[in-house]
Amino acid sequence: MTTTQTTAPNQEALASYAQDVARKARAASRKLTHLTGNQKSAWLEELARTIDARQAELVAANEIDIEKAPEYGLNSAAIDRLRLTSARIQGIIDSLHQIVGLTDPVGEVIQSQLRPNGIRVSQVRVPLGVVFFIYESRPNVTIDAAALCVKSGNAVILRGGKEAFHSNMAFYKILADSLEKQGLPRDAVQLVETTDRAAVGHFLKMHELIDVTIPRGGRSLIERVTNEATMPVIKHFDGICHVYVDDSADLEMATNIIINSKTQRPGVCNAAETLLVHQRVAEQFLKQACAELLDRGVELRGCARTCDLIEDAKPATEEDYRTEYLDLILSVKVVDDIEEAIEHINEHGSHHTDAIVTSELKAAEAFQLAVDSAAVMVNASTRFNDGGEFGFGAEIGISTDKFHARGPCGLRELTSYKYLVQGSGQIRG
Amino acid sequence: MTTTQTTAPNQEALASYAQDVARKARAASRKLTHLTGNQKSAWLEELARTIDARQAELVAANEIDIEKAPEYGLNSAAIDRLRLTSARIQGIIDSLHQIVGLTDPVGEVIQSQLRPNGIRVSQVRVPLGVVFFIYESRPNVTIDAAALCVKSGNAVILRGGKEAFHSNMAFYKILADSLEKQGLPRDAVQLVETTDRAAVGHFLKMHELIDVTIPRGGRSLIERVTNEATMPVIKHFDGICHVYVDDSADLEMATNIIINSKTQRPGVCNAAETLLVHQRVAEQFLKQACAELLDRGVELRGCARTCDLIEDAKPATEEDYRTEYLDLILSVKVVDDIEEAIEHINEHGSHHTDAIVTSELKAAEAFQLAVDSAAVMVNASTRFNDGGEFGFGAEIGISTDKFHARGPCGLRELTSYKYLVQGSGQIRG
Repeated sequence: MTTTQTTAPNQEALASYAQDVARKARAASRKLTHLTGNQKSAWLEELARTIDARQAELVAANEIDIEKAPEYGLNSAAIDRLRLTSARIQGIIDSLHQIVGLTDPVGEVIQSQLRPNGIRVSQVRVPLGVVFFIYESRPNVTIDAAALCVKSGNAVILRGGKEAFHSNMAFYKILADSLEKQGLPRDAVQLVETTDRAAVGHFLKMHELIDVTIPRGGRSLIERVTNEATMPVIKHFDGICHVYVDDSADLEMATNIIINSKTQRPGVCNAAETLLVHQRVAEQFLKQACAELLDRGVELRGCARTCDLIEDAKPATEEDYRTEYLDLILSVKVVDDIEEAIEHINEHGSHHTDAIVTSELKAAEAFQLAVDSAAVMVNASTRFNDGGEFGFGAEIGISTDKFHARGPCGLRELTSYKYLVQGSGQIRG
Repeated sequence: MTTTQTTAPNQEALASYAQDVARKARAASRKLTHLTGNQKSAWLEELARTIDARQAELVAANEIDIEKAPEYGLNSAAIDRLRLTSARIQGIIDSLHQIVGLTDPVGEVIQSQLRPNGIRVSQVRVPLGVVFFIYESRPNVTIDAAALCVKSGNAVILRGGKEAFHSNMAFYKILADSLEKQGLPRDAVQLVETTDRAAVGHFLKMHELIDVTIPRGGRSLIERVTNEATMPVIKHFDGICHVYVDDSADLEMATNIIINSKTQRPGVCNAAETLLVHQRVAEQFLKQACAELLDRGVELRGCARTCDLIEDAKPATEEDYRTEYLDLILSVKVVDDIEEAIEHINEHGSHHTDAIVTSELKAAEAFQLAVDSAAVMVNASTRFNDGGEFGFGAEIGISTDKFHARGPCGLRELTSYKYLVQGSGQIRG
């Protein structure tokens, strides 16, 4: 599992390397506090120009990763995701321009009060400080994460996957050059220059120097980080998302919503994995919707009542209802009432995104109140739980935590706040 | 160290007890989601009435704790803090009425957008869920914490100190009775009914059932909780607070502010521990301020330059500048300029509360921008970093974290949010 690109360094050298990187990040983060929004925008535009000008360099580095990909056991779909084409490079540039256009969250006055004794107490948004970002595969994430972190005033330590190591290094050179050219601290963005897995462990111990760790990848990565981290972690766990079709639902709308939630992009976290149907409409709805789902190549795994109604459905196990398929597979369950649906979701789901299709106000309200998830939709596809769709712009992940950040994590979720007090000599009596 | 009030149970029994308590708390938290603000207020008022009516019971239980206090090595000041007098019981009742008057944070719409496709995306405040609150000594905290948690829609598991066990149990009976009488879930507030320290460890493992742990007490408690907890922790670490007197300061104002910050209540976290003085005004200011501080019984520990100026100052060690005295002791350091002051604070402080005294706008702005603390004061005492003084009402602690909650933690800091999406059949294209 442990593959190193560089010569395998010993643990002491790794620990001292990690310390050095984190210390530089902390120093850079203090300097970032002083930047204006214009300075950060100028850097983002410089970065976009530099990526455009140095496409050949990026593509050449990417080719090394593509050649090595079979060694890492990547299948053809994964290799395709890894590949940098000129269209994809243009996508990265476009995304940078979009980030330039987003409101800088730093300095926002969240609230401000003039207290009776004349002191003014203002709660003002500030950067978190140093972000340790761990991610897998697609190299465009390197630029997205660097842009979001620096725009929100944070220094970032990037730890990409080994399969994109050469592409990431090429992006890193461009990042460093553009930071330097615009007079921003070069260490505002650092890439961990070893793929030794043990390096991550050293970073996770440094809560004095790193303010938050954001892992983005498979469940095992996130579990490892959660267990080892000594600083806060923004977790982006599974999306086991549900669509519940109430007995009051417009069944055609319900069919469109489950088809969209399941099949529009089955490999992402906000795709639906389980369909719940009220018993009263189960027969009519399932016959109609399942035919369309089967037509689209969706495999159905149902409860006993579902299997009685739908010949092509296989029996679902308890495990199915707790599985994020990320594939064209759907668990189906007929429920007695909305209460059973809510309980099923709270017990089996992952608190990510869940939807009800209903025409009854009371059902909509009860569902939104009781379902304990980051996003709870009424008559809309689960696929809308996304920073772009919510109007926040680019996101660094979708949090399934309740703490600090829940749902899409954009620029604002990369900030903290401090209280600034202005007095004229007040003391406490 | 491990003293049990009940017979020492074995680890298995303790683990199963903790599981049972946490499960009940989770079930209660789901019910609390459905309560209106009026229902919660009615309970708070019932609680206040019941405490008033059952004072004798409280005082009798408290007497058992007072008798046992010397066994636990409590000194007379600590025993005094433990004692429930009728004035203190009235204080608890007054505090409940104050909490009734605070705005209920649950249901607040933080932001809401109508997106171009017609879906409405609203970010709405919701309870965190289940809070595990660990605290020491003063029994009034039992009622304060229960009131704040339930008002913000959370179930709470209270773990008080062994020295207040009987007082806490008496409060707990009143809490349970008042919850039942007002039709609220009885398990909304539970007290851990053993003082076995190992019980805490079992709770800290249950991140599936407990959403946040809040330790309030000494550094060793908070460090233990931080190391063992598998869920987020709101930390309330040391307050190593500074007052920096700039060369532009009104020196009389500066004297008042350092005296108030140091001596108004030296045993609390927002009291000042270190005085920094610009070299240009060091002689004039220190001669004036130190005389007054010495008059008030403050012991001074200074750098070489301070000791040259102030005969009664003892030499400070590096350790002094990193110590929360919580006592009438003050470290003093003469600095070359504001940059040295800022660097000293960021390196030696605890990111709690720091103040500058200055008449220059530029100095005030630079200090507030660069000092990385929960509250940064200009020309005001450090003692103002407090939920009440900031206008948020009662607080469950003052966070020195940057994540989720920073500074005073009141009702709002005990909440999360969810995104509610209202559609009319929208799907993603």
